[in-house]
Amino acid sequence: MPYTLLVRNCGQLLTLAGGPTHRPLTGPHMQDWPILADAYVACENDRIVAVGPMAELDETQVTTETQVLEAAGRVVMPGLVECHTHLVFGGNRAHEFQRKLQGESYLDILASGGGIQSTVRATRAAPDETLLANALHHLAGFQRYGVTTVEAKSGYGLDAETELRLVRIAREASRRQPVRVVPTCLGAHVPGPEYKGRPAEYLHMLVTEVLPQLSPAEVPFVDIFCEEGAFSVEQSRHYLAQAKELGFKLKIHAEQLHDLGGCRMAAELGAISIDHCDYLNPADAAQVAANGRTVAVLLPLVPLFLRQEVYAPGRQLLEAGVPVAVSTDFNPGSCPSKNLWLALSMACLKMGLTPKEALAAVTLNAAWALDLQAEVGSLEPGKRADLLVLDVADYQEIPYWLGENPVRDVVIGGIQQ
Amino acid sequence: MPYTLLVRNCGQLLTLAGGPTHRPLTGPHMQDWPILADAYVACENDRIVAVGPMAELDETQVTTETQVLEAAGRVVMPGLVECHTHLVFGGNRAHEFQRKLQGESYLDILASGGGIQSTVRATRAAPDETLLANALHHLAGFQRYGVTTVEAKSGYGLDAETELRLVRIAREASRRQPVRVVPTCLGAHVPGPEYKGRPAEYLHMLVTEVLPQLSPAEVPFVDIFCEEGAFSVEQSRHYLAQAKELGFKLKIHAEQLHDLGGCRMAAELGAISIDHCDYLNPADAAQVAANGRTVAVLLPLVPLFLRQEVYAPGRQLLEAGVPVAVSTDFNPGSCPSKNLWLALSMACLKMGLTPKEALAAVTLNAAWALDLQAEVGSLEPGKRADLLVLDVADYQEIPYWLGENPVRDVVIGGIQQ
Ligand SMILES: [Zn+2]
Ligand SMILES: [Zn+2]
Repeated sequence: MPYTLLVRNCGQLLTLAGGPTHRPLTGPHMQDWPILADAYVACENDRIVAVGPMAELDETQVTTETQVLEAAGRVVMPGLVECHTHLVFGGNRAHEFQRKLQGESYLDILASGGGIQSTVRATRAAPDETLLANALHHLAGFQRYGVTTVEAKSGYGLDAETELRLVRIAREASRRQPVRVVPTCLGAHVPGPEYKGRPAEYLHMLVTEVLPQLSPAEVPFVDIFCEEGAFSVEQSRHYLAQAKELGFKLKIHAEQLHDLGGCRMAAELGAISIDHCDYLNPADAAQVAANGRTVAVLLPLVPLFLRQEVYAPGRQLLEAGVPVAVSTDFNPGSCPSKNLWLALSMACLKMGLTPKEALAAVTLNAAWALDLQAEVGSLEPGKRADLLVLDVADYQEIPYWLGENPVRDVVIGGIQQ
Repeated sequence: MPYTLLVRNCGQLLTLAGGPTHRPLTGPHMQDWPILADAYVACENDRIVAVGPMAELDETQVTTETQVLEAAGRVVMPGLVECHTHLVFGGNRAHEFQRKLQGESYLDILASGGGIQSTVRATRAAPDETLLANALHHLAGFQRYGVTTVEAKSGYGLDAETELRLVRIAREASRRQPVRVVPTCLGAHVPGPEYKGRPAEYLHMLVTEVLPQLSPAEVPFVDIFCEEGAFSVEQSRHYLAQAKELGFKLKIHAEQLHDLGGCRMAAELGAISIDHCDYLNPADAAQVAANGRTVAVLLPLVPLFLRQEVYAPGRQLLEAGVPVAVSTDFNPGSCPSKNLWLALSMACLKMGLTPKEALAAVTLNAAWALDLQAEVGSLEPGKRADLLVLDVADYQEIPYWLGENPVRDVVIGGIQQ
């Protein structure tokens, strides 16, 4: 069969291939992924079928049926994998921005009925069509930044009906446009307003009324926010163990504001990812590294937006052998940003990742954080044909042009968008 | 004459008009610019001729000749004024990014032949066509962010011939595309490599060989970098006084890394703007405020990119009565970013500006920083028809969607781009 799409004359082809395939990239492997000069990527329908130097291109597979995308010496890389977002919500919290600037804390705003509770009210009140339209608007934004796979957490319903509705809307959004959406149940974001002061009862409700309604084949992940004011380590452990029993893969929001031990606990349960890690201590990091599979998802735009100065110790995590991914944490409260390139630059500037480590963190390691490493995150035969042509000539320029969007062309599933 | 362009159904029209017109916005005025709900802007050719509520639109002026831009409830505002960039340079310094991450200081990199000297070598070696093409590429980027006026400093030539060449290229770039370019002579960036250790002789060369070749009508500003390793306060004062004598308006880079007193000195000489101000002390700020005209141009992306934690005291400057503008400082060394919206958000998050203050800082006050307040920076009859339709419904969303580009439509000189 002839190639359906050929991306030719890639000045630098960042394949992100070549690391060990049975584990996410970490330690020295995070740096040693190769760059092919003057290279091509060939696709058949939605799959990559060949990658290599231009000199080795099999011209017999290039026919009049082949769409040719001329990279003209530019950088070509895998589509970005955005592994931690809260995509579906009603309203926004722009009106709280000025209050935060004037020194009101997250907890002050929460106490006055703002914060997450205002998003919960807006989300519960919004019809499905509004929530879907908002999600599609944000997905179009992500696509402009070259994001081709997006994880989407529920968590602004906080009752059984709305949490199930949010998961359904995330799945519907996936069908309506090309960016792949991976839904996660974060019913355990904070206890619902009807369960104030009764977190264990709220979790029991989720286990009995929400999780049994979900199929792990359709909604692969269950997540929980382990933090003061949300759920304790013990509550989180109990809930995640039950979710695992039901066949779900695990994620956790932990060590965002305090060092409670949530990350270590979740890694012990075999969590696919531990997210935030700003306060993760070295001993716990070593424990997570020993697990060998759990990916730390770092979210550098969150402290930036919250005007905090504690960032996850990215450099130390890498050196301890913890695989690292980077994400925006897109959400209406603590990080209303879809600019994953900005997150990548901030991971370099504030967490000490090198440009190559940061690029692995938003592609292959982010795919591992979604257990999709066999499908996306690198340019290798057999993987989904999700790739970007960037308007730069050298990968080192990617974190350098701070806050800018280097994307020129986006290909998803073999189709140029 | 009928309207040539009508922007209708602006949900919020940020006119930035209504403050005192004889001074830049400062203190309480910075906050009290009005927002018109359900409003329109009408233009004749390149000028705004009417602004008001939709109910007062003179429909007789709307004919088949009128282009209608439907804002559909969105925010409409003046085109951004980017009042401090180093637009024209050869090469880039992406390869130094990783060295900085590994802890090498600006001075370490400079000592090894990197830093500004590497840009000077690349700039001197580049043919005019290359420098012009680079400048046009960056101007196209600025335009995508809604920037409709850009100041462009020379300063990477550091010899008479190349400094004059850079100013010519900035002027040529202005003619080749719609964004207005305002050239500034920053020959006094650092002493040229041929004048190592002889800063006063270098400045003398500029005064005798460069400035007399420039017309203040075409190149209105002369600027100097007053800092350790560049020029002292005394050298700067002497140079700026000579430039003033020759008819140029004055700018200064000062108090970026040390509190030397450059800002106060320049304000005493009647400088139009004092730029950086990260280390400006309260007593000097009060002196600048007393001047009443000098605008402090704050550059929040610079400390962010340089991994420094000292930001200009924006809130205190405002409260002291100093007019404040915000800019990217786009340049290849300390801030390779054209995302002025990101700078606006960081001015809120790191310098304590409110959203309204930050919006004034990238429009009307930035126009004052270029002495173009009669031409651009607000939506008022008689001003140039430079305006933006944003993809948000409320101005408070502008700094909130961190790092994103809210621009939907750009109008420059009455023409939709
Ligand atoms: Zn989150
Ligand atoms: Zn500058």
